[in-house]
Amino acid sequence: MDELTTNPYDDDKLKEECGVFGIWGHSDAAAMAALGLHALQHRGQEATGIVTTEEGRFHAHRALGHVGDAFASQTVMAGLRGHAAIGHNRYATTGDTILRNVQPLFADFDFGGFAIGHNGNLTNAYMLRKQLVRRGALFQSTTDTETILHLMATARGGSVLDRVVETLRQVEGAYSLVCLSKDMMIGVRDPNGVRPLALGKVGEAWVLASESCAFDIIGADFVRDVEPGELVYVDGHGLHSVKPFAPASNRFCIFEYIYFARPDSVVETRSVYEARKRIGAELSKESNVDADLVVPVPDSGVPAAVGYAAASGIPFELGIIRNHYIGRTFIEPTDHIRHFGVKLKHNANRAILDGKRVVLVDDSIVRGTTSKKIVEMVRAAGAKEVHMRISSPPTAHSCFYGIDTPEQEKLLAHRYSVEEMAKLIGVDSLAFISIDGLYRAMGGEARDPVSPGFCDACFTGDYPIALVDREMQGNGGGLSRLWEARA
Amino acid sequence: MDELTTNPYDDDKLKEECGVFGIWGHSDAAAMAALGLHALQHRGQEATGIVTTEEGRFHAHRALGHVGDAFASQTVMAGLRGHAAIGHNRYATTGDTILRNVQPLFADFDFGGFAIGHNGNLTNAYMLRKQLVRRGALFQSTTDTETILHLMATARGGSVLDRVVETLRQVEGAYSLVCLSKDMMIGVRDPNGVRPLALGKVGEAWVLASESCAFDIIGADFVRDVEPGELVYVDGHGLHSVKPFAPASNRFCIFEYIYFARPDSVVETRSVYEARKRIGAELSKESNVDADLVVPVPDSGVPAAVGYAAASGIPFELGIIRNHYIGRTFIEPTDHIRHFGVKLKHNANRAILDGKRVVLVDDSIVRGTTSKKIVEMVRAAGAKEVHMRISSPPTAHSCFYGIDTPEQEKLLAHRYSVEEMAKLIGVDSLAFISIDGLYRAMGGEARDPVSPGFCDACFTGDYPIALVDREMQGNGGGLSRLWEARA
Amino acid sequence: MDELTTNPYDDDKLKEECGVFGIWGHSDAAAMAALGLHALQHRGQEATGIVTTEEGRFHAHRALGHVGDAFASQTVMAGLRGHAAIGHNRYATTGDTILRNVQPLFADFDFGGFAIGHNGNLTNAYMLRKQLVRRGALFQSTTDTETILHLMATARGGSVLDRVVETLRQVEGAYSLVCLSKDMMIGVRDPNGVRPLALGKVGEAWVLASESCAFDIIGADFVRDVEPGELVYVDGHGLHSVKPFAPASNRFCIFEYIYFARPDSVVETRSVYEARKRIGAELSKESNVDADLVVPVPDSGVPAAVGYAAASGIPFELGIIRNHYIGRTFIEPTDHIRHFGVKLKHNANRAILDGKRVVLVDDSIVRGTTSKKIVEMVRAAGAKEVHMRISSPPTAHSCFYGIDTPEQEKLLAHRYSVEEMAKLIGVDSLAFISIDGLYRAMGGEARDPVSPGFCDACFTGDYPIALVDREMQGNGGGLSRLWEARA
Amino acid sequence: MDELTTNPYDDDKLKEECGVFGIWGHSDAAAMAALGLHALQHRGQEATGIVTTEEGRFHAHRALGHVGDAFASQTVMAGLRGHAAIGHNRYATTGDTILRNVQPLFADFDFGGFAIGHNGNLTNAYMLRKQLVRRGALFQSTTDTETILHLMATARGGSVLDRVVETLRQVEGAYSLVCLSKDMMIGVRDPNGVRPLALGKVGEAWVLASESCAFDIIGADFVRDVEPGELVYVDGHGLHSVKPFAPASNRFCIFEYIYFARPDSVVETRSVYEARKRIGAELSKESNVDADLVVPVPDSGVPAAVGYAAASGIPFELGIIRNHYIGRTFIEPTDHIRHFGVKLKHNANRAILDGKRVVLVDDSIVRGTTSKKIVEMVRAAGAKEVHMRISSPPTAHSCFYGIDTPEQEKLLAHRYSVEEMAKLIGVDSLAFISIDGLYRAMGGEARDPVSPGFCDACFTGDYPIALVDREMQGNGGGLSRLWEARA
Repeated sequence: MDELTTNPYDDDKLKEECGVFGIWGHSDAAAMAALGLHALQHRGQEATGIVTTEEGRFHAHRALGHVGDAFASQTVMAGLRGHAAIGHNRYATTGDTILRNVQPLFADFDFGGFAIGHNGNLTNAYMLRKQLVRRGALFQSTTDTETILHLMATARGGSVLDRVVETLRQVEGAYSLVCLSKDMMIGVRDPNGVRPLALGKVGEAWVLASESCAFDIIGADFVRDVEPGELVYVDGHGLHSVKPFAPASNRFCIFEYIYFARPDSVVETRSVYEARKRIGAELSKESNVDADLVVPVPDSGVPAAVGYAAASGIPFELGIIRNHYIGRTFIEPTDHIRHFGVKLKHNANRAILDGKRVVLVDDSIVRGTTSKKIVEMVRAAGAKEVHMRISSPPTAHSCFYGIDTPEQEKLLAHRYSVEEMAKLIGVDSLAFISIDGLYRAMGGEARDPVSPGFCDACFTGDYPIALVDREMQGNGGGLSRLWEARA
Repeated sequence: MDELTTNPYDDDKLKEECGVFGIWGHSDAAAMAALGLHALQHRGQEATGIVTTEEGRFHAHRALGHVGDAFASQTVMAGLRGHAAIGHNRYATTGDTILRNVQPLFADFDFGGFAIGHNGNLTNAYMLRKQLVRRGALFQSTTDTETILHLMATARGGSVLDRVVETLRQVEGAYSLVCLSKDMMIGVRDPNGVRPLALGKVGEAWVLASESCAFDIIGADFVRDVEPGELVYVDGHGLHSVKPFAPASNRFCIFEYIYFARPDSVVETRSVYEARKRIGAELSKESNVDADLVVPVPDSGVPAAVGYAAASGIPFELGIIRNHYIGRTFIEPTDHIRHFGVKLKHNANRAILDGKRVVLVDDSIVRGTTSKKIVEMVRAAGAKEVHMRISSPPTAHSCFYGIDTPEQEKLLAHRYSVEEMAKLIGVDSLAFISIDGLYRAMGGEARDPVSPGFCDACFTGDYPIALVDREMQGNGGGLSRLWEARA
Repeated sequence: MDELTTNPYDDDKLKEECGVFGIWGHSDAAAMAALGLHALQHRGQEATGIVTTEEGRFHAHRALGHVGDAFASQTVMAGLRGHAAIGHNRYATTGDTILRNVQPLFADFDFGGFAIGHNGNLTNAYMLRKQLVRRGALFQSTTDTETILHLMATARGGSVLDRVVETLRQVEGAYSLVCLSKDMMIGVRDPNGVRPLALGKVGEAWVLASESCAFDIIGADFVRDVEPGELVYVDGHGLHSVKPFAPASNRFCIFEYIYFARPDSVVETRSVYEARKRIGAELSKESNVDADLVVPVPDSGVPAAVGYAAASGIPFELGIIRNHYIGRTFIEPTDHIRHFGVKLKHNANRAILDGKRVVLVDDSIVRGTTSKKIVEMVRAAGAKEVHMRISSPPTAHSCFYGIDTPEQEKLLAHRYSVEEMAKLIGVDSLAFISIDGLYRAMGGEARDPVSPGFCDACFTGDYPIALVDREMQGNGGGLSRLWEARA
Repeated sequence: MDELTTNPYDDDKLKEECGVFGIWGHSDAAAMAALGLHALQHRGQEATGIVTTEEGRFHAHRALGHVGDAFASQTVMAGLRGHAAIGHNRYATTGDTILRNVQPLFADFDFGGFAIGHNGNLTNAYMLRKQLVRRGALFQSTTDTETILHLMATARGGSVLDRVVETLRQVEGAYSLVCLSKDMMIGVRDPNGVRPLALGKVGEAWVLASESCAFDIIGADFVRDVEPGELVYVDGHGLHSVKPFAPASNRFCIFEYIYFARPDSVVETRSVYEARKRIGAELSKESNVDADLVVPVPDSGVPAAVGYAAASGIPFELGIIRNHYIGRTFIEPTDHIRHFGVKLKHNANRAILDGKRVVLVDDSIVRGTTSKKIVEMVRAAGAKEVHMRISSPPTAHSCFYGIDTPEQEKLLAHRYSVEEMAKLIGVDSLAFISIDGLYRAMGGEARDPVSPGFCDACFTGDYPIALVDREMQGNGGGLSRLWEARA
């Protein structure tokens, strides 16, 4: 089963692609944005940027790498003058044009400057881009977000708000946007509300952020979530709200609760930590097993394991220790090191595991590459039985709404049954939470196929927003070809 | 109480100053050393180095920063040829001469090259250095370790081993050394065995490491600890052991169990994780309190909190979330950011804490700077009561045996009673484990003042090894002045 | 006269803003381009770039700094695949957006990719840009060159060539362009032929370059200059030439002969070195003086000094030595260092100058900042008399055709008479070549005001191409304001 | 003749290995030292350092690279406090230990700190080093200069001066030293005075420098040369002079006049520029030829070419143009680029050379690699005849006194006669100045073999100082082996 070999950097997780932040009316706006982005670092670790505005002028700094490094320089911070700022973290692509893709994007319009940061993914951006290029638009980045800027540039509407609305009526997909013009900050979520966006306040300043943990770090109070299909803007007169789109069903990404969001965040009125604990408890009810220890795969499996242990009465133990010193570069993975693979990040706690029957709790299995190695390591440390429990249903479908997923062919759950997976991974038993169990843990009943209330396409294949570009590409479309050609 | 303000990088911990590793007889010695040092990264994060030997030649690479970065380059690794290697992690000093201090140190003798890595601290190095300089020795670093090299250079003994023994009979202090000549690898611990050193084996190769977690990462088996006062060497004939020093009482550093060592390590035959859990359990017996939650200060407080929760029956919860993305540089701590201080690293999990009576478990309080901020944050998140429980006795004395401690005047426990400390930190109650409770958790009786079996000087002021240099300096001694003068 | 203080980096020269290079049909196109750009380094030292094309794909590398550094990496060069390449050197502006301005610029059109490198300056780019922005164009750089790309994007013509011609008919100014599409390389000069562009051949490959010295370095033969108003293109069928513009008078920049071009280049059929020597000889005829030595201000004054010495019979001597080790950074100019100013680059050769009457030959005086310091230094070395001779007429007007000139108010010759300048600079006599003398040195008669045959606007104020944007800006125009606003 | 292929970075010159500078009694000593080292950059381009002293403390900064870069940082300069400074430029070796070799070296003695910068090379350093190591000395660098420090450490003498003198009486070789203790600055030349050292004054401050051009840049006055065998020191009482060595004949390096020193320097009372002109004139007398042009190989051949042209009446022309933009890195020398070789640095000025009989003037031929390429290039530019004239005698012997020379086997003049060399290089005629002509140009008679007055060992093989280490190494000595073994 060579497809399950691993390299030390692969943690076999889906990746949230972005986090956004905005603040309006604060004397230290850029520093607040940097702190907020630091709290949102888990939503995008490869690039970051902040744009501020000050009396009609705009200042920007964008960089590859972590927030802390990007904004460590006093000179950089001193240049980001102004009372308002938006910022963005990105799980970036690679290549020559990479800095052009780092957000917030910025453009000069006849009404002045305009910056935008985007969490999510548009599903008809390539179709729109082709039309725009045919009409003479010159694209500079390979991001879907630039399509929004070009639509705004060619919109008929006069005011900034009119142009934003006219533009968003043309795009489809998942988006939580923060925007900045010289006169206002805008926050908006797509009609289905796939990605999160919350509203807070610190003193007189209004704040927008992907998750509430970004409010905590700057001492802001959580006010409420921006609603699906709602556009809020803050200007000299305060906060305004409009709902310019046709109503649609709520389809908030359920995976935010399983893995993406930080456990100390509250998103869409639910505590992420408590949701995970409830999923763990539900999982223990669905697939309990006689065992000596509940051991999380750290760090993401910990809250579900706490819930599992409490519900099952089996003791919670740190049977796997994580080494947090692993950075961006590491010892070149020679054959020897590749062989030790997962141990660069994790080590089994032999004193705890030896001779024990272990319930291993993890949040998901994507390609399965890491799980197999973890299990081997736990067995080598003396575990007598290994029962793996996963706090999500099998991930059998790709996401097109802002999450970096492997192609469907690479998803273990797309190719194998649970029994086959158990064998491949080498466990004594393997269980995923059921889709209905997951909905129950969210506080409801079993999943309602007509109106499930969440986007769970990665588990069910039920895509709430049409995949326009994907169908074009299926017909020999050229998005990737066009983008490769960029110099 | 302004002395309790904090900056975001201060985590108010004592710092282990070094980790050492050695391997003899392995075709990929340098890669094994890099992996081992990675596992020992927690023992020294500011500089690292490896020296290898190959047919009488020596190759070295030393760098500031983490192991992963220092040995990421294939060119660097390819240059570290040879079947034997020793390595060192260092919690480094700063300044112009910094690279000269990065270990392993190396010197050419008439018998050939010799490299040495040292965990610990000599207590008569400055006195010896003064004598050596008077006799014409030129020192190049400001480390006590270089004194060992100069003593070897001027030793009468002919063989490498004779010189090492003759030298070590002159030095006093705490040391676990790994040494490398073209013909042998040496490992040795001071007569009291203050710092750890363990012996392992992978295939035919012998391995030395500060902790057993460095064996796990390379798949080596733990063989035994090197004994206090024992010198082991490995050459073409295999492993040898000698005991060249007068016998002395065992005084292994008890703080290794409280904080320094990794929880997945076994040191001096005890599992660190289990020791911490037992300390937590003992602490709960000594100073239980009626509460709703046991919350660890992550990451170091977690095992004791698990033990405390299990023993007390109060639920274990992740009430504080740690942000692991904080790096070496960060947003310049302006007043605003300084104000948010500890939040760059930690965030309170409000959904869990709000309205609750909380037992906060941490491993130690050094200057108290961080504790106060943590408590404020936990209260701001709604905690009704905060009871702090510390899994070590009050740290009231400085360490001179290889741990970076503030001057005694800065130690909170030196200046205040437990009641005063509780008030300063702002908790409803504060309790430290008793010194006898700590010894009980180690599996014994109450502390025997005549032969305690551990070094616990930082709690008791009972220093097992004479502090020669310190007394000289007290009399206007000039170590620091001499060292400042270095260009 | 505090305006004549200097800093060590100021060499008080006008700066050519760009050099261009192109090659079509060579198996090692990118390496040839890098060599050609290295030979053209004097035409732009702050940024450089190469774009190649390979079976419809384009590859690019752009960087700040010198050509040698930018293309030193084998990885970079290996990525620049393809049989055709264009390149550009730039005297760049500073700031956050700087990399977006580095040429060649590139855009995706519906016909495919298109790259462009531009030497010169458009005089109506801002007016066109305003119109384009009003129609929905999003500009990404602050270069006038991007206007060309947007005009092409919105042109009606179908073929690449049609679009280029339609575009160039709308722009005014000075331009020598090299362009690259997947099917052809284009070279074109503006109707007045202000900036140079030459055509060469190496083997079967056609080459375009700003100066012939770029042919020499790759062993290419000079074929001919591209003519003013001529567009040449090379495709699978070979070289083609079209003249799509209304005929106009030749106005080649005469300053290329005085300073910009390399002395080993032949531009517009004249050897630059010989032209400079003839100017020196003419200058000696016009303003001879009884003296002991002719001393050039190195390096640019050397050829004119050789000509002056030969014509006057006064010995040529290296009375000033240049230090070529001065780099991009240097010892922070503290007051002390500022005081020594010019000496970082030049030193007087006291053994030669002491007690002598010296004719100092330089090519131009712009703000006069350096000249004063040079004269002081020469006098301090013992020169009895200092007579300065300048191989250009007084520079009294700014250039808007691709040369970086200070504002007119800063030009010494705009503010002072020659007698006043002599006094300010501190020389015993000062003479510039006359404008008629300059034309005679070019091989003709005195300047014909109706049809001078060269652009000499910086001396005469006779601007051959209308300054559209400049007049707009005079009326409160906003080019700079718009550009400052870019984030 | 494949040994004459070239690479673009090879300029086939001998390399001066060091320059030194010192200043005592100046409020801005470090800045003065940085400027002086900048003026001496041609004497060592790969590393540089400054040590200052301030009330008994010493501050140092050493770096690889050019002086301008090394001391560009205000922080670095601000740290170099004190009224006295010494500095050093180095043509460095490569490898891991490189920074340990960058001078000035520094050591702590019982009398305090002591720094030393050395131009020259000791000829018995390895022998002394072996003795010192046997007695327990630990060497940290691989430079001969460290031997001086160890001898001082073990000297019996009490005062700094006594130790320096006792030490220098043991060493042999060529040395011009600048030294700094907290109480004095010392300058000293070896008894034969092989390398230069001059004394200057600026205000009340005394200055030492390898060449007078370092005085010019800081506005210091040249006072006199330090004499062979003289030791000068400056302390609170002013300047003192002692002559502690047995008298010896003057053997100043004659190659300093031919190539090493800057043309604007005066060394040993002679103007370097005038000496070169006189050599050129003498060369023209010895080996005149009927020709159209005298063309220097720039930059070093220029003064001799000026002298040759003036003496012969043949016009001086810049027939070869040098590109000064070539830096430390460059386009990877692929086969194509290697083929163009020398053209990266030089280009023939075809307009001048075509159809002409050319006298090419260069200062020396070492391995001949560049000369052949230059001649090919000049011929390809149309030269009808090429006559090469060299302003030094054939370089047939290696230097052991501080100049980087290839092994003798690689010296073209060691292997071939002048006729053979002419053929290999491809010239119509080749002539070197005769050794007697060279002495005449120095203002004397033909060379006196008994007391030549200069060191000319590279031409004559007459080595004035015994080559102790070299003879040891010839007998299987181990300097290089020991050095390689360093980690």
